[in-house]
Amino acid sequence: MKYLIIGGVAGGATTAARLRRLDEDSQIILFERGAYISYANCGLPYYIGGTIAERDDLFVQTPESFYDRFHIEVRINSEVLSIDRKEKSIEVRDLTGGRTYSESYDKLVLSPGAEPVKPPIPGIESEGIFTLRSVPDTDRIHEYIAEKKPERAVIVGAGFIGLEMAENLHRRGIFVTIVEMANQVMNILDYEMAAEVHQHLKLKNVEFYLEDAVSAFKPDRNKKLSVHLRSGKVLPADMVILSIGVKPDTTLAQKAGLEIGESGGIKVDSHLLTSDRDIYALGDAIEFPNPISGHPMKIPLAGPANKQGRIVADNIVRGNSRTYKGTIGTGIAKVFDITVASTGLPEKLLKGIGIPHTSVITHSGSHAGYYPGAIPMTIKILFNPEDGRLLGGQVVGYEGVDKRIDLIASIIGMGGNVSDLAEIEHAYAPPFSSAKDPVNISGMVAENVIKGTSLQASWTEVFNPEKKKDILLLDVRTEEEHALGSVESALNIPVDDLRRRIGELPRDRKIVLFCSVGLRAYVAERILRQHGFSNVANLSGGYKTYSISTQ
Amino acid sequence: MKYLIIGGVAGGATTAARLRRLDEDSQIILFERGAYISYANCGLPYYIGGTIAERDDLFVQTPESFYDRFHIEVRINSEVLSIDRKEKSIEVRDLTGGRTYSESYDKLVLSPGAEPVKPPIPGIESEGIFTLRSVPDTDRIHEYIAEKKPERAVIVGAGFIGLEMAENLHRRGIFVTIVEMANQVMNILDYEMAAEVHQHLKLKNVEFYLEDAVSAFKPDRNKKLSVHLRSGKVLPADMVILSIGVKPDTTLAQKAGLEIGESGGIKVDSHLLTSDRDIYALGDAIEFPNPISGHPMKIPLAGPANKQGRIVADNIVRGNSRTYKGTIGTGIAKVFDITVASTGLPEKLLKGIGIPHTSVITHSGSHAGYYPGAIPMTIKILFNPEDGRLLGGQVVGYEGVDKRIDLIASIIGMGGNVSDLAEIEHAYAPPFSSAKDPVNISGMVAENVIKGTSLQASWTEVFNPEKKKDILLLDVRTEEEHALGSVESALNIPVDDLRRRIGELPRDRKIVLFCSVGLRAYVAERILRQHGFSNVANLSGGYKTYSISTQ
Ligand SMILES: Cc1cc2nc3c(=O)[nH]c(=O)nc-3n(C[C@H](O)[C@H](O)[C@H](O)COP(=O)(O)OP(=O)(O)OC[C@H]3O[C@@H](n4cnc5c(N)ncnc54)[C@H](O)[C@@H]3O)c2cc1C
Ligand SMILES: Cc1cc2nc3c(=O)[nH]c(=O)nc-3n(C[C@H](O)[C@H](O)[C@H](O)COP(=O)(O)OP(=O)(O)OC[C@H]3O[C@@H](n4cnc5c(N)ncnc54)[C@H](O)[C@@H]3O)c2cc1C
Ligand SMILES: CC(C)(COP(=O)(O)OP(=O)(O)OC[C@H]1O[C@@H](n2cnc3c(N)ncnc32)[C@H](O)[C@@H]1OP(=O)(O)O)[C@@H](O)C(=O)NCCC(=O)NCCS
Ligand SMILES: CC(C)(COP(=O)(O)OP(=O)(O)OC[C@H]1O[C@@H](n2cnc3c(N)ncnc32)[C@H](O)[C@@H]1OP(=O)(O)O)[C@@H](O)C(=O)NCCC(=O)NCCS
Repeated sequence: MKYLIIGGVAGGATTAARLRRLDEDSQIILFERGAYISYANCGLPYYIGGTIAERDDLFVQTPESFYDRFHIEVRINSEVLSIDRKEKSIEVRDLTGGRTYSESYDKLVLSPGAEPVKPPIPGIESEGIFTLRSVPDTDRIHEYIAEKKPERAVIVGAGFIGLEMAENLHRRGIFVTIVEMANQVMNILDYEMAAEVHQHLKLKNVEFYLEDAVSAFKPDRNKKLSVHLRSGKVLPADMVILSIGVKPDTTLAQKAGLEIGESGGIKVDSHLLTSDRDIYALGDAIEFPNPISGHPMKIPLAGPANKQGRIVADNIVRGNSRTYKGTIGTGIAKVFDITVASTGLPEKLLKGIGIPHTSVITHSGSHAGYYPGAIPMTIKILFNPEDGRLLGGQVVGYEGVDKRIDLIASIIGMGGNVSDLAEIEHAYAPPFSSAKDPVNISGMVAENVIKGTSLQASWTEVFNPEKKKDILLLDVRTEEEHALGSVESALNIPVDDLRRRIGELPRDRKIVLFCSVGLRAYVAERILRQHGFSNVANLSGGYKTYSISTQ
Repeated sequence: MKYLIIGGVAGGATTAARLRRLDEDSQIILFERGAYISYANCGLPYYIGGTIAERDDLFVQTPESFYDRFHIEVRINSEVLSIDRKEKSIEVRDLTGGRTYSESYDKLVLSPGAEPVKPPIPGIESEGIFTLRSVPDTDRIHEYIAEKKPERAVIVGAGFIGLEMAENLHRRGIFVTIVEMANQVMNILDYEMAAEVHQHLKLKNVEFYLEDAVSAFKPDRNKKLSVHLRSGKVLPADMVILSIGVKPDTTLAQKAGLEIGESGGIKVDSHLLTSDRDIYALGDAIEFPNPISGHPMKIPLAGPANKQGRIVADNIVRGNSRTYKGTIGTGIAKVFDITVASTGLPEKLLKGIGIPHTSVITHSGSHAGYYPGAIPMTIKILFNPEDGRLLGGQVVGYEGVDKRIDLIASIIGMGGNVSDLAEIEHAYAPPFSSAKDPVNISGMVAENVIKGTSLQASWTEVFNPEKKKDILLLDVRTEEEHALGSVESALNIPVDDLRRRIGELPRDRKIVLFCSVGLRAYVAERILRQHGFSNVANLSGGYKTYSISTQ
């Protein structure tokens, strides 16, 4: 058999390696347009920032090592121009020699990845404006910084790569300004979770403009750039990173008449087969039904690309015996000292596609409070209010964020519900967790919501002057805490005085209780409910989430 | 309703708090024999070691704060002497006044915990010999160290608490010697995993004697102790910690005629009800069918006690509506710089009870190798060789061990198999993981074993001179690596030369391949298999596990 693979990085190289392990006798040729294969895309920002000191560390395999180990023929600088599906062959241009030739296949694998989005903004081709996808992109940015010693950078787009670049440029001593069209960074988070990132960026002296966009880039005589925003603001910049997002590279697939899906990725079935029985596709270039929503989604991440590669190889050699379950979308980024992570679907997306959902927000220590070094983290989970099925999770904090998002992802992946989260039998010793892990707590709070034991109110409800009119806000923290700052117009009765002072509360108004994170207010809510107050709710995430979100 | 609770720490206090949240009107009285409730047992070693500086930090609630918040009446220094099940009352002795009285109940909860095992060794009551369970125990040890400034401590028993105490006494400048009856520390690990702990203890200059036991303690004139071992060895000691294990405190239950289970814990049903419909029991005192083996097991850990507390309260107030699924036994300990964790059942236990199982051992980096600070960790998983159901996991390493054991535990908890482990969609960015997380890799290797794509050999097989006779050992590492040390009599053909040199290999002998961790040997194994060698296997865990285990 003869297998051709297009694209030599995450998806392509993984497929090739597994193919060889399963099929020693076949001919395997890997085509890569660029000069490098099998490199760590995800490490590129850290090489620019200097955390990864050696450029060589970015390469996992070279064409030579790949041949020695796997007898895989790697053709770099080789662009595949087209696919002849009838003849089962591809046309290749050797980018060094310029020669074009064709190569036949029994099975073809497409892992061409994605391209950074570059909107037609005036001046976008000016010197000093970069996108970051490949090793040459990285070399360009690295050299530019070394040579030009830029003092100010503007980053356009505040997703994972944008924020990683913010940290890494800052690390190189560059003052960073972020411009983002949405009203928040990290669109895969809900607003109140992103608000914690906003706060941290301010602390780190990173400037950002939200709900704004670049209208033009204007280089001046000294090769300095002015970045003009729609709002009228003009930002000076010595360099610009465009990190607005990526779009799947479907050029080849489209030309070959392969089916493209509704979200713009190559359409594949559960065996990762395209609409042609001899062509598989994977990685950033495809779309696949999201297991939670059922809607096709593009999730350009390395983990899924690697896992898909193994499935494609198995299906080629073992006759479509393995199905892909889909990607729920688990992502994480270190943003200076904090870690920001998300899995499944955020509230705004669930709302958009009409999936019944509700949420709880909790704050917990990264480990037992009595053991030194415990730092707060915030967890938001989304779940079906009827059966508790877990739909999404978001975690922001300093330590142990990766563990908690992985646990939430593993329960979502198993089709579990909030009780499964509450019941995870985690490993507990004081340096690592608490007797109830933060994800257990999050599941427990959600269970209480489902059972009607507790009702949650959102900070948006309390912040909205219209809605707020009808609500009595009850701060159950101590008088000292209340005096240090509270929600405007809130009444203060400390939880431990509540039973005694219950007569002070009106029985004809909705009462929203809050404390700092939600625990004492929950205890207070239970007291009120059992004293006949039925229209009460606990402010989700407490004063902490409220104050961060409304700053 | 009137609820009485016996035991005021992990299980008892949690039950009480949830009871009040669910039932504001009931009378709740908590009886505690000691002077303290609601304290952090798990923090006690760290207070002794000085990591937790303030004694006050050990207390989560006091009787006063518990009353103020929950209107729960706490009676400390109050020992429950007996239960009159017919009258539905208990007899209590006030240990300060000496008065004895009785108190009636509608529902009774037993969370009396466990007692440290103290075998009848001659001299065991000598001064300077301690067990560690409670705050007074802790105070005694703390004071003894402050006053006597001991230089040498002997720790008897190398379980979680023994090893935590080893670290914490060492931190106080005390030379520590451990005596353990088994041939390894941490009995919940299999030998080759414990061997990594042995290595680390040596590095830290902690002395240990395995397969040995104390025959007598002999105090001399200067109040120094001699610890006599069965082997004849005599260890000098200024203090001794007994951490041989705990036995459930079933005194009350037994006296009251409640059913005791076959492993010696109070027997409860899935609602955590004892053999009396009005008496619930939880925590260290009970046994419960292990979800993996079906056999009753005692698992004296704080996480389960806390989770059970919530279930007991729900069942009392909401009419036995909630079932307990059982504890798989997830434990973790920091041992100096390493972390040691286990979940589910180890190989030796699976073997003992005849559950079909096999295992794989892998070594992975704590995060992507190209990002600084990645440190190796070892993962062993146990699974059913037919359907891949996950039965257990063990992880030893420096960083991210807690995350991996929790992920394995969450998959076991959901009844998942090794493919579920391979498919966990973890969060990946270079500081946190690799594109395939170590637990994914572990699941993938196991999948290959199940499919017959790869076969594993155990280090015991290769180490056993009898079995070894018939085996050709093939080291597929580089010549340089081989020269630095290898398994005796192993042939060396580097994996990248294997295709060329395949003629050198005999076709009539079993070949066990190895590299440093198992990855290259797997690639080599696949080459051999596809060249017609069928009697080949990959040394599980590679030379690394072999050399650590045979040291
Ligand atoms: C800066 C950066 C940071 C990232 N960080 C993370 C992270 O932390 N975590 C994470 O999960 N993901 C991260 N990603 C995303 C991750 O790298 C991608 O999801 C993954 O590489 C996708 O794999 P792929 O095989 O689909 O595409 P790629 O890895 O991009 O490989 C596609 C290859 O195909 C080649 N190609 C395309 N068309 C042709 C053609 N016609 N002929 C020949 N060759 C062709 C391209 O040159 C390219 O090399 C990051 C990406 C970048 C750019
Ligand atoms: C040093 C140490 C370290 C530990 N570290 C960890 C760890 O890192 N992780 C982990 O998960 N677990 C750990 N544990 C175990 C954990 O603390 C226990 O599993 C947990 O406390 C069990 O809860 P329980 O309610 O069953 O018993 P306990 O918490 O022990 O409470 C039982 C209470 O009942 C009282 N009592 C008993 N009989 C009577 C009576 N007749 N009348 C009145 N009162 C009575 C006792 O005085 C006692 O205070 C550790 C334990 C110790 C001792
Ligand atoms: C490196 C690369 C070629 C991968 O090849 P790979 O061989 O599939 O991946 P790994 O080196 O992780 O090895 C995994 C394989 O070894 C096996 N393995 C790993 N450790 C093992 C061990 N200790 N014992 C036995 N087998 C082991 C796994 O089962 C798996 O084999 P399988 O797929 O046949 O089951 C490819 O992933 C790549 O190019 N990566 C870099 C690009 C990239 O991913 N970029 C984005 C992230 S920055
Ligand atoms: C402290 C102690 C009394 C526990 O009481 P607890 O109130 O059940 O536990 P927590 O303080 O963690 O609070 C958990 C409760 O608050 C709720 N909660 C937590 N955070 C919340 C938030 N942000 N919003 C709403 N509710 C929240 C949880 O749902 C749970 O309530 P529920 O059980 O009614 O669902 C008891 O666990 C104890 O004594 N612990 C110390 C002893 C011990 O465990 N030792 C061994 C370990 S070292």
